[in-house]
Amino acid sequence: MQPETVVRSERPFDGKLIRVRVDTVRLPDGRERQREVVEHPGAVGVLPVLTDGTLVLVRQYRHAIGRALLEIPAGTREPGEDAETCARRELAEETGYRTEALWELVRFYVSPGWADEELIVYVADDLQPGAMHPADDERLEVVPVRPDEVPGLIARGEIADSKSVVALLAYLGLRLGGKRVGDGPQS
Amino acid sequence: MQPETVVRSERPFDGKLIRVRVDTVRLPDGRERQREVVEHPGAVGVLPVLTDGTLVLVRQYRHAIGRALLEIPAGTREPGEDAETCARRELAEETGYRTEALWELVRFYVSPGWADEELIVYVADDLQPGAMHPADDERLEVVPVRPDEVPGLIARGEIADSKSVVALLAYLGLRLGGKRVGDGPQS
Repeated sequence: MQPETVVRSERPFDGKLIRVRVDTVRLPDGRERQREVVEHPGAVGVLPVLTDGTLVLVRQYRHAIGRALLEIPAGTREPGEDAETCARRELAEETGYRTEALWELVRFYVSPGWADEELIVYVADDLQPGAMHPADDERLEVVPVRPDEVPGLIARGEIADSKSVVALLAYLGLRLGGKRVGDGPQS
Repeated sequence: MQPETVVRSERPFDGKLIRVRVDTVRLPDGRERQREVVEHPGAVGVLPVLTDGTLVLVRQYRHAIGRALLEIPAGTREPGEDAETCARRELAEETGYRTEALWELVRFYVSPGWADEELIVYVADDLQPGAMHPADDERLEVVPVRPDEVPGLIARGEIADSKSVVALLAYLGLRLGGKRVGDGPQS
């Protein structure tokens, strides 16, 4: 599919985590449109699985949405850091567990209509316990979760971020039921 | 979990789609930190399923990541528009299909560490064909996909956005295999 050509580019915001770019692009038919793009360094998530199948999640307050979520351990990639090193580092910082046994499960873009953040999801087993050392502005609570609790936690919105939902669905092979929301015309 | 209190708030960018807020927050222990937040109106995705089980996806160029992806039909919510109405509108615009049969499968935040975008994912069946009428800057190609093709499309990164990965995993109950990436110390 033919790409859009950038005609002009502005950078109205350059933050510590994200940068905003506004591109004027030319469509293949010659028309021009504006595209707002958030640049993000990318992130990794790690689903830690204990020998008995228990999943190790973390509860964390998320200021952007004003509440706490139950998530897989995760973090933003640092400049020049490869994804596997980042995964091991975040796993150790947030849960204390160390491992050499890492599987790449899936990678995806969180919202490619306007952001370039790519997320790489790993599964970690053969876990060795150790001391946690979260980043200085992270408040984390480690929460062990059994696989059979996951569908209810997703349905109730306690697990509700893309990386954790993707990781848990993909690892456990869960089919979600959902609920009928309309069987007649909506006003 | 105790929330963070906003001490100061700035709005360095106010775009057509997104707005950026930089909040100075006070942590429960009294320290102050900065949080960059992207405000987004929220979006819906719809997985359309034909009577024989064929899934109706759309291929679309995504400027933010510089390539085309195969996605479920989706779109941004308009001011005051409820999610089900938005889902039916986007389904009709992007594929031509109309339906009254809609199921809410799951809802999630795309990246709650720095963005407030919530995505609601529906499944639609009992589809009635009609004419497509995509938005004037959208270039879309409708692509029918069989369920058994989905794991390969995800593994090859052709299906690679959070809403489509979540929708397809949750609807089909797919377990992804992944690949081992390390069994020894990483340098």
